[in-house]
Amino acid sequence: MRHYGRETEKALAILGEGQTPRKLIQAYGEVKLACIRAQQEEASLYPPDFFILLEDAALEVIRGDHDNQFPLPLAQGGAGTSLHMNFCEVLSSLGNSRTKGQFKAHPLEHIGLYQSTNDTLSTAVILMSFRLLEEIESKIIRLQEELVSRETLYQEWVMTGRTEMQDALPMTLGQLFGAWAGPVERDRWRLNKVRERLRLIPLGGTAVGTGFSAPRKYVFAAEKALRRITGLPLCRSQNLCDQVAHWDSLAESAGVLGLCAENLIKWTGDLLLYSSTFLGEIPQEEQQFGSTIMPSKANPVLIELIRGLSLDVHSSADLVKRYASEGQLQLNAYLPFMAEHMIRMGEKLSKALSTASERLLPALKPDRALMEEHLVNSSALINTLREPLGYQNVKELLPLLRKAGLKDRQELIQWLSQNSSMDLKELEDRLHLHHLTSGGKI
Amino acid sequence: MRHYGRETEKALAILGEGQTPRKLIQAYGEVKLACIRAQQEEASLYPPDFFILLEDAALEVIRGDHDNQFPLPLAQGGAGTSLHMNFCEVLSSLGNSRTKGQFKAHPLEHIGLYQSTNDTLSTAVILMSFRLLEEIESKIIRLQEELVSRETLYQEWVMTGRTEMQDALPMTLGQLFGAWAGPVERDRWRLNKVRERLRLIPLGGTAVGTGFSAPRKYVFAAEKALRRITGLPLCRSQNLCDQVAHWDSLAESAGVLGLCAENLIKWTGDLLLYSSTFLGEIPQEEQQFGSTIMPSKANPVLIELIRGLSLDVHSSADLVKRYASEGQLQLNAYLPFMAEHMIRMGEKLSKALSTASERLLPALKPDRALMEEHLVNSSALINTLREPLGYQNVKELLPLLRKAGLKDRQELIQWLSQNSSMDLKELEDRLHLHHLTSGGKI
Amino acid sequence: MRHYGRETEKALAILGEGQTPRKLIQAYGEVKLACIRAQQEEASLYPPDFFILLEDAALEVIRGDHDNQFPLPLAQGGAGTSLHMNFCEVLSSLGNSRTKGQFKAHPLEHIGLYQSTNDTLSTAVILMSFRLLEEIESKIIRLQEELVSRETLYQEWVMTGRTEMQDALPMTLGQLFGAWAGPVERDRWRLNKVRERLRLIPLGGTAVGTGFSAPRKYVFAAEKALRRITGLPLCRSQNLCDQVAHWDSLAESAGVLGLCAENLIKWTGDLLLYSSTFLGEIPQEEQQFGSTIMPSKANPVLIELIRGLSLDVHSSADLVKRYASEGQLQLNAYLPFMAEHMIRMGEKLSKALSTASERLLPALKPDRALMEEHLVNSSALINTLREPLGYQNVKELLPLLRKAGLKDRQELIQWLSQNSSMDLKELEDRLHLHHLTSGGKI
Amino acid sequence: MRHYGRETEKALAILGEGQTPRKLIQAYGEVKLACIRAQQEEASLYPPDFFILLEDAALEVIRGDHDNQFPLPLAQGGAGTSLHMNFCEVLSSLGNSRTKGQFKAHPLEHIGLYQSTNDTLSTAVILMSFRLLEEIESKIIRLQEELVSRETLYQEWVMTGRTEMQDALPMTLGQLFGAWAGPVERDRWRLNKVRERLRLIPLGGTAVGTGFSAPRKYVFAAEKALRRITGLPLCRSQNLCDQVAHWDSLAESAGVLGLCAENLIKWTGDLLLYSSTFLGEIPQEEQQFGSTIMPSKANPVLIELIRGLSLDVHSSADLVKRYASEGQLQLNAYLPFMAEHMIRMGEKLSKALSTASERLLPALKPDRALMEEHLVNSSALINTLREPLGYQNVKELLPLLRKAGLKDRQELIQWLSQNSSMDLKELEDRLHLHHLTSGGKI
Repeated sequence: MRHYGRETEKALAILGEGQTPRKLIQAYGEVKLACIRAQQEEASLYPPDFFILLEDAALEVIRGDHDNQFPLPLAQGGAGTSLHMNFCEVLSSLGNSRTKGQFKAHPLEHIGLYQSTNDTLSTAVILMSFRLLEEIESKIIRLQEELVSRETLYQEWVMTGRTEMQDALPMTLGQLFGAWAGPVERDRWRLNKVRERLRLIPLGGTAVGTGFSAPRKYVFAAEKALRRITGLPLCRSQNLCDQVAHWDSLAESAGVLGLCAENLIKWTGDLLLYSSTFLGEIPQEEQQFGSTIMPSKANPVLIELIRGLSLDVHSSADLVKRYASEGQLQLNAYLPFMAEHMIRMGEKLSKALSTASERLLPALKPDRALMEEHLVNSSALINTLREPLGYQNVKELLPLLRKAGLKDRQELIQWLSQNSSMDLKELEDRLHLHHLTSGGKI
Repeated sequence: MRHYGRETEKALAILGEGQTPRKLIQAYGEVKLACIRAQQEEASLYPPDFFILLEDAALEVIRGDHDNQFPLPLAQGGAGTSLHMNFCEVLSSLGNSRTKGQFKAHPLEHIGLYQSTNDTLSTAVILMSFRLLEEIESKIIRLQEELVSRETLYQEWVMTGRTEMQDALPMTLGQLFGAWAGPVERDRWRLNKVRERLRLIPLGGTAVGTGFSAPRKYVFAAEKALRRITGLPLCRSQNLCDQVAHWDSLAESAGVLGLCAENLIKWTGDLLLYSSTFLGEIPQEEQQFGSTIMPSKANPVLIELIRGLSLDVHSSADLVKRYASEGQLQLNAYLPFMAEHMIRMGEKLSKALSTASERLLPALKPDRALMEEHLVNSSALINTLREPLGYQNVKELLPLLRKAGLKDRQELIQWLSQNSSMDLKELEDRLHLHHLTSGGKI
Repeated sequence: MRHYGRETEKALAILGEGQTPRKLIQAYGEVKLACIRAQQEEASLYPPDFFILLEDAALEVIRGDHDNQFPLPLAQGGAGTSLHMNFCEVLSSLGNSRTKGQFKAHPLEHIGLYQSTNDTLSTAVILMSFRLLEEIESKIIRLQEELVSRETLYQEWVMTGRTEMQDALPMTLGQLFGAWAGPVERDRWRLNKVRERLRLIPLGGTAVGTGFSAPRKYVFAAEKALRRITGLPLCRSQNLCDQVAHWDSLAESAGVLGLCAENLIKWTGDLLLYSSTFLGEIPQEEQQFGSTIMPSKANPVLIELIRGLSLDVHSSADLVKRYASEGQLQLNAYLPFMAEHMIRMGEKLSKALSTASERLLPALKPDRALMEEHLVNSSALINTLREPLGYQNVKELLPLLRKAGLKDRQELIQWLSQNSSMDLKELEDRLHLHHLTSGGKI
Repeated sequence: MRHYGRETEKALAILGEGQTPRKLIQAYGEVKLACIRAQQEEASLYPPDFFILLEDAALEVIRGDHDNQFPLPLAQGGAGTSLHMNFCEVLSSLGNSRTKGQFKAHPLEHIGLYQSTNDTLSTAVILMSFRLLEEIESKIIRLQEELVSRETLYQEWVMTGRTEMQDALPMTLGQLFGAWAGPVERDRWRLNKVRERLRLIPLGGTAVGTGFSAPRKYVFAAEKALRRITGLPLCRSQNLCDQVAHWDSLAESAGVLGLCAENLIKWTGDLLLYSSTFLGEIPQEEQQFGSTIMPSKANPVLIELIRGLSLDVHSSADLVKRYASEGQLQLNAYLPFMAEHMIRMGEKLSKALSTASERLLPALKPDRALMEEHLVNSSALINTLREPLGYQNVKELLPLLRKAGLKDRQELIQWLSQNSSMDLKELEDRLHLHHLTSGGKI
């Protein structure tokens, strides 16, 4: 049975068939449930038995039982009025179709009473975005833990640190993983902090934030009900005209998701290098067939997937910001578009983060011997001996060293003890991992 | 029956269930059909009856009979190798499942022979994008025609020209529509011209553009077959290493679609003003219920829809450019992501353009009387009399004029003949539409 | 006298003549002074009298006495090594040219000892950016105060609230200014909070964050000295490899400045409407000659200036983010470019904010009578009477009302008392400012 | 002597001291000279001797003799009216200060007669941008030639082709340079073609494109004069209202410059890899001191410079597009900002291209032996023998080959002739450069 009505049909004629995303149906369902409870509390708007039917209907909508009643795509004009009408129509129709009593609910005169699209859909989008940030935060935490655990695991693995793509100084693989964990840790902090500004809702502001037509008691009740339903620390703004009109906090939240994506872009860029055939220090297990022509080729498919998704997230973040700055006077008509891209970002970033934690990191198999070999043959290591040996001697040793084809620091120490003025003891001290990678001076 | 095989499954495990878009299935199907025909021509790779089965299978794929066999989302790593494998698996399985002969086709040893993902998927994406540009061009032409027809229709309707949101000089509504047609006409030209650079394909270049493993005769045959199948002026590039590696032409094409979108943004921005309650010279018919609170409100839903879509297109255009600049060495791994956003842009822009031509323009109902009234009460008109009346006199007339509350130029001419030194004849000349809006000097 | 040396000259040959910006010279000067003091404390690197000369030289550089010794543009490769060399050369030369003693300082063996470009220039850029955020915050506070003061001033001025460019419901001009203050207040908060993540410096990390060559005591001394010199709560990061390599915190800071700009874009977009000749409720005093043709035209030059600058800031914010995501392995080579755009953003945003607070807001002269007139003739007001009058009656009153040409609510109340079933008392209650704009229900 | 007057001073008070860029002074000077000549032709506006003085003044302005009379920054509101006033004031003052006659020119009544900022500054910006595109084109041609010359030079140098950062198939260094030349060749084409749309000027359209106040004869004369003065194929648009209002052609031109930059980004990204210490096939000569700590380090400073500049250009291209889409009704107020960023792009891109052609390419010293060594030890080469040897044999040969430590194809052929079933003749055929890299099959 079709529960949506004429206004939804009119919108469908313009927009074409689509599907309102699950996450937004849930959130808007929760907002409407809160409003219905507040209507009842303030004005006993419904007969008691009808009210129960209505509550049930709203709970089913929240749960996802009626998703096919919400066929509108989010790409819609009208600031979401069509979506609001869709909700009012479906809820009233669900109630009316089940009641045995006389009372029939009207989409606007009852379900939508005391409300505007502008305060209720806004509240739903904020609520949905708040949850989305929580979800991403939990995935960020997982990634952070995975990286940090490798910081410890690899703290003795020495490798070449490189700046501007040139060998520079020794470091440990643990330090590398630790460095990679840094931005992720900050992302976690950002995701947590940005929610402080996102938790303010315009519920009760109605069309322009002045609250016209919404009784004070109803407003308080709706806010309280929504907090109880969602369990989230949502709070009515003290500046409702602002809250209805402005979306900089959503833009800011989108920006934080964008930063997470950019950090993944940097990190996976490093991994592309480390897993390349020409650097190869952190190869990855083959995931799938690499090529139709070259049987031995294993492509960095996970890295590229994460990267491709991250660039998409980054782009949506910018777009949300653009929509947010397109508000005019007392409203921003592009709220449904912003919601669409918040959901898109959530999905893409979530996929990227899961792929990173659950597939990519376990598939990385650092090659300790190769790292050591690269290091002993690199000027990065021999440069650390500039002080005892002198600049000129280092320079003369370098070509000889390259010819020697040494494999690790042990061989290097032997070789240097024969080819330089330093004795074994000093060489062992100076080429000790700790000395090389933990700052300080002997 | 499931025709895709193990490699597609491995990819599904990573990527999750999705759906390769219809437009790309069609295009890649056409490329594979061309390759199969060329394989047969060059090497008689298949027994004749098997070849016929294979051709049929490919034609069905092209037609859309097997879309459910292509469950991979375009957001994938590996530069599209998974998608290529998917095609090879499905085509061989379709052939094998239908043959009564001994011969069984192998996905790679037969279907994929002489090919790489890097030259075949690339060719499919170019072919698909070429068509998409044609499609958009036809919608742009429609919009141009609609605008130009109003240029003629409204050539006698006089209104206030405004710069920096201030009344400036008189113009006609026809000139306004003509001005709006300008960028659309240039978009048409751009869409046409950019295809000159997009029609070059890397077919035959195999993995890195050197054409390794692809016999020369096969290459020529494949190119020719593809031209015949598609009816498009595709042409093999003379610089295949370039063509495999670089996607600036696709970025450029995306940029042209982005420009179309930006032009819609400017135009609809104007319409938001003209249809506002405070300017109101070009109101639009109500499309749907405007508000749950304010019954008489009619929102500019079509304009906002076009604008929201256009901003989305603009964002995808930038993203395609970004993906295009992320190529490394001999390949760009983000081809599937680029394809995803080309399709997205095509759909969104197509929707925006149809909405503009088919719904928005017919719904605009310019208010001739209001335009005339605004003009006669604006300094824009009286300023045109600065020369005969003198600066000081104009300045003194303005407040008197405002009080007089005149409705049109006829009333103004009467009023001025009584309140200034000019006679009726001169006033009629000077305030004649042609004099006001067609340049020149009496 | 020229104090810079050969390495600076080599860089000049590549980059061309430019000028390192004052703000960065100051910040880098402070970092170098801190390092010199720490070198002396740890290793008594300089003879006491030479040390005093060196400190003086550094203080002069900080003060701006030697800006002409820093001719390098920030658009430079090498991650700022040239800039670092420039500082080492100038400081050693200044010291050497003034000393009467034997000791001569070497740019690298002395001035640059224990340091790398990668930890010192980074520290300088952070320090400079920290200050820049403080500076912008103070201008944001000023703007917030200006807006909030008008919220109070205009709390009794009633006007039309408009959504989607259509008249919606009444509000007060105070509420409008209050709404505009909202994003600015959040910007203030953001600017404050983001500095928590920006205050971490990589000083002592040397080239890749491992701190190689930098004695522990020196590192502590340098950090402490820098805090004392700058008076800022800078703090050495616990994850130096991260801090040397990653610039997401700077990207985040740039993003906050970008948000400030986007909020200005939205606000000035509103002002363009309110000051237009067709809405005109908040005209602005003429700033300069509007046109060569139309003498009476006053252009919104201040608004456009703020808007143009804000779009520039927004663009630089995105660019800083892009540079930040272009880091590779243990370093980001684009630090000087990021510094360039942080400074650019600071200047442009600072100009935009000053123009807003000091010129634009004082020039706005809201037209109370026009606001009232617009309101009484708008459906926004009459719609608020839907409940007592009934939908149909409201609809019938509207055209009559338009003909009546009323100027304010007083006239409207009179007119309604004669043309509707409501009495004066009820009309006065219902059309009272407080009822119309403060939520609630009678 | 100061020639600018009160309106320029008012603007300075708002904007602060700056400097109008040389390129725009020249272009606007040329437009004003054309207008003055047309005024004289149409209306003999000036006494003959005064006219000669005025022409001289304009020629001096064009030449750069009076740049200090144009102190306004381009970041200005008012759509450039201030800049126009500045020109009118300076030209009239220059004429008046030199004349011995009675006649004095008035900035607006004479110098600005028949003109608006909106048609004259627009024309100047188009003219300037046209030249800028020509300039960039000449640098693009130079780069293309440099790349193509290396395509020939290196056509026998064999190397490893790599896709997704993994060894794939052999190719030649000549093919690599040829591939790099591809996008540059297309940029050249784009730069040439885009000028077709950029050469249309709105001269004579005055304030809104209707041409009000501009006599027809004057308009024709001005257009003709401008063509003669500049020698450029400029042409008055047939749709002046469009041409005054819309800047999509400038946005398109900016987009082409942006594409040039993105192509440089891709190319220099490759060079960062090829010149890295871990790939190292195309090292570059040291340009300057690499590090204060590591004496042997040579940084890719030129590559980073080009890349940093290109990212800046890319950003300005997007910004110009944004400004272009911010036009409203009959004008775009952000023309001066667009001009600022066109000039910025020109300078940055010009620097990037010169650096590439004149410094970077000559400094690249491909290491033929290393390329050959990489190739013979890579699976890319041995994979090409899959057909004769069989998949399993290739797989078993690979680890043996790695141990053998071969240096070039000659050694490989010897080794394979002993370790496989193939004879010398077949090996020489199959591992011949031409077979490996020119497509086809034996």
